[in-house]
Amino acid sequence: MFRVDLNCDLGESFGRYRLGEQEEILKYVTSANIACGFHAGDPTVMRETVKLAVANGVKIGAHPGLPDLNGFGRREMNITPQEAYDMVIYQVGALQGFLTTYNETMQHVKPHGALYNMAAKNPAIAEAIAQAIYDISPSLVLFGLSGSELTKAGEKVGLQTAHEVFADRTYQKDGSLTSRNQPDALITDKEQAVNQVVRMVKEGIVLSQQQIEIPLQANTICIHGDREHAVEFAEYIHSRLAEHQISVHAIKEG
Amino acid sequence: MFRVDLNCDLGESFGRYRLGEQEEILKYVTSANIACGFHAGDPTVMRETVKLAVANGVKIGAHPGLPDLNGFGRREMNITPQEAYDMVIYQVGALQGFLTTYNETMQHVKPHGALYNMAAKNPAIAEAIAQAIYDISPSLVLFGLSGSELTKAGEKVGLQTAHEVFADRTYQKDGSLTSRNQPDALITDKEQAVNQVVRMVKEGIVLSQQQIEIPLQANTICIHGDREHAVEFAEYIHSRLAEHQISVHAIKEG
Amino acid sequence: MFRVDLNCDLGESFGRYRLGEQEEILKYVTSANIACGFHAGDPTVMRETVKLAVANGVKIGAHPGLPDLNGFGRREMNITPQEAYDMVIYQVGALQGFLTTYNETMQHVKPHGALYNMAAKNPAIAEAIAQAIYDISPSLVLFGLSGSELTKAGEKVGLQTAHEVFADRTYQKDGSLTSRNQPDALITDKEQAVNQVVRMVKEGIVLSQQQIEIPLQANTICIHGDREHAVEFAEYIHSRLAEHQISVHAIKEG
Amino acid sequence: MFRVDLNCDLGESFGRYRLGEQEEILKYVTSANIACGFHAGDPTVMRETVKLAVANGVKIGAHPGLPDLNGFGRREMNITPQEAYDMVIYQVGALQGFLTTYNETMQHVKPHGALYNMAAKNPAIAEAIAQAIYDISPSLVLFGLSGSELTKAGEKVGLQTAHEVFADRTYQKDGSLTSRNQPDALITDKEQAVNQVVRMVKEGIVLSQQQIEIPLQANTICIHGDREHAVEFAEYIHSRLAEHQISVHAIKEG
Repeated sequence: MFRVDLNCDLGESFGRYRLGEQEEILKYVTSANIACGFHAGDPTVMRETVKLAVANGVKIGAHPGLPDLNGFGRREMNITPQEAYDMVIYQVGALQGFLTTYNETMQHVKPHGALYNMAAKNPAIAEAIAQAIYDISPSLVLFGLSGSELTKAGEKVGLQTAHEVFADRTYQKDGSLTSRNQPDALITDKEQAVNQVVRMVKEGIVLSQQQIEIPLQANTICIHGDREHAVEFAEYIHSRLAEHQISVHAIKEG
Repeated sequence: MFRVDLNCDLGESFGRYRLGEQEEILKYVTSANIACGFHAGDPTVMRETVKLAVANGVKIGAHPGLPDLNGFGRREMNITPQEAYDMVIYQVGALQGFLTTYNETMQHVKPHGALYNMAAKNPAIAEAIAQAIYDISPSLVLFGLSGSELTKAGEKVGLQTAHEVFADRTYQKDGSLTSRNQPDALITDKEQAVNQVVRMVKEGIVLSQQQIEIPLQANTICIHGDREHAVEFAEYIHSRLAEHQISVHAIKEG
Repeated sequence: MFRVDLNCDLGESFGRYRLGEQEEILKYVTSANIACGFHAGDPTVMRETVKLAVANGVKIGAHPGLPDLNGFGRREMNITPQEAYDMVIYQVGALQGFLTTYNETMQHVKPHGALYNMAAKNPAIAEAIAQAIYDISPSLVLFGLSGSELTKAGEKVGLQTAHEVFADRTYQKDGSLTSRNQPDALITDKEQAVNQVVRMVKEGIVLSQQQIEIPLQANTICIHGDREHAVEFAEYIHSRLAEHQISVHAIKEG
Repeated sequence: MFRVDLNCDLGESFGRYRLGEQEEILKYVTSANIACGFHAGDPTVMRETVKLAVANGVKIGAHPGLPDLNGFGRREMNITPQEAYDMVIYQVGALQGFLTTYNETMQHVKPHGALYNMAAKNPAIAEAIAQAIYDISPSLVLFGLSGSELTKAGEKVGLQTAHEVFADRTYQKDGSLTSRNQPDALITDKEQAVNQVVRMVKEGIVLSQQQIEIPLQANTICIHGDREHAVEFAEYIHSRLAEHQISVHAIKEG
């Protein structure tokens, strides 16, 4: 029997601005990455989102990003490793505040957007982030791009890591994701997405755009909650995984 | 033997902007209120300030403010009690993140500026803040204006409170501080400031501008670290309190 | 023959966050109030919105707000008149930058949200805003709540003013709008809304919730672009005004 | 007779945070680059700074930066050329608002920090900035690193450009500035700084750290107003240039 976690970004609204179909998607994912106010989210949104996740029995993780609300944390910034460390501590701590009020334990930390991408490639940034998470609590799980510098740094510092893969993104022969600038970056066919996921989970292999089989670990699958038909897709992948004898559980779930 | 705490705002720098003579004043105060990034402070400043306070053996508190960096958190904003609750949880949590990395326990929470003033007068805001602090941890001490709605709300919810008094501010006959708009708001004479403090601590009385004796509690004295000669004044008041058999200890110290 | 202007807030998106049905409503309004980046809007949104308004032949105004993106500029802040002056100059100038690139002249300025409400009641804030607009250009039109301190200040400084009335809000006997906290603040019946508007424009009278007839000027009607069915309502009111021999023109139109 | 402009960054304070010795340095420079609220400055600081520059007869330019107050606009961000265009329009427009209230014409635009550096190397960013300035007004002067992509883009679009050189920074053999990370980046000897400037202005040559003579244009010299002894240094360089028959005038001065 195989198992995998389904994670989804959550709490991306800000003030009067709404984003994502939060409530519905929580029925199908097992881990929620909650924005912490730098690239999205605000204190009120964070409290409401934590409440929602707790009510749905979904494990909670912090989703720290770059301090760039206008760019949604997607524009790389030339920060130092020390700054990366500090902004992760700050954001994880802020979210922990809300979890504390619900007597809830944080399961994981997954960097967002450009911070995630920078950490996947840049060892110094990756190590700073891993150290920050470890310093907050050695029992936190680090979510990072499968096989990246970030998961490597997490393992080095002694954290449990969850290698993340994508159902709806294509891969390159070096194991990286195809850039969103490329026309073939996204997988829009649901069946193809499911097949990619099943193979990643069961065989530890993904077929790159160059038709080369790439080995990779797949502990958690990213579900994009802000896409069109996100809920429908989450429901679909959930049921198809069951057919393939892959059970869906949160990383820290029994 | 009488005792009192000396507290001081700290960590008010932001990015390239420096504010306050942090290092020196830590020799004379027993509790530090560290800004949490809304009205002042940033993640890097917060880490450095926590480190400094720990190194000096000074007890640490969170100093949450309104989300108004440009106004330094001094402009009242018409927020709801729920928003007050949420922004306190967020900021206290963020600071706790840094304390955790130093294995340090937070002693207290003192709202900043306009949030402090609003909480002193407005019971709904006061109760929301007290509840937020309690929900983070019932062992936190709430610092608030002596005899205000804030200390009242803290006591009601079951928190230990520290009634704060001011050495260098004059009082009105209703026990409130003379507004800074008034010419006689500040006490600039050091001797007069010390005398006011000694009487507040020993007799529980302050003489208002209307020459009426006002009863009040004095558990902690606010030292303004950003004033000119702040360090000098802190040192002076520290030594003069000793002469009057008032020992200076942090609220949670032995 | 009577005439009136229909104005609508525009450009309220921010980064990845979308708000309002911009394109459609521009067919029915004659003046657009474009957010300037403090309570909503960002440089890219502003450029796109100016372009859209120009393409639709709608007159453009600046819609400056309080520096409170998280509160959408709706929380009153205790700013000084000088700060109000400065933030209006800044925001009007910023929008003017984009108009300049389209060789377009700004028609008006209408403060947003809490700044609008504060200016309606507080003469010092009202005068600071009116002076700022006049100092930018004496040919700008000041949009303010009909009969308020803001229109009064505009007239005093020598600006053309447009008295604004609301189709879907009820009035109190002192001529103020019923607070949104009250259950009867909004008019949801389209027919009632149209009747209120027609009477305001033709007779200069509105019937307050206390059933007292209040005299008021009505130069421009606010259409809420972010409401449900906003476009439908804009279209409806537009056609009904025609039936009542009220022609719809921008304030500065021929 | 040779001539050169001395420019200085100004208006870098923010709210309660003060930066730079504004008033004194204005006696020695001929052009002031005023921060526009993204990396530093706020509406009130901008108004006060414009007033000061006008009172001292110093020509005014906009100093737009990246939206990164915490990093003081010094951290490169992966923005698009369109975003660069939009943020320049916004910031130049905002400053123009204050100039309008003083009936003052803007002389120039000089991007700040990381935006300046990105524009020096990246043609697409450089062209977007040059186009933005041209679209605001073709009579504005573009200040950019001497011989960089930015001055090139300015000339291409039809703007007058001022090639900027540095008195207190060393150069590399490719004409770029020695990175601040290098130990020999700064010239601390006043005499050496003056000699470098004189040679750049009179001969159009700078001696690189590799002892190779590099040709370059020198229309304006950057004076760092936030350094220690900035005023003293500005005064010194001013008087020494006179001795070398180099007259100091603003770019657009007579």
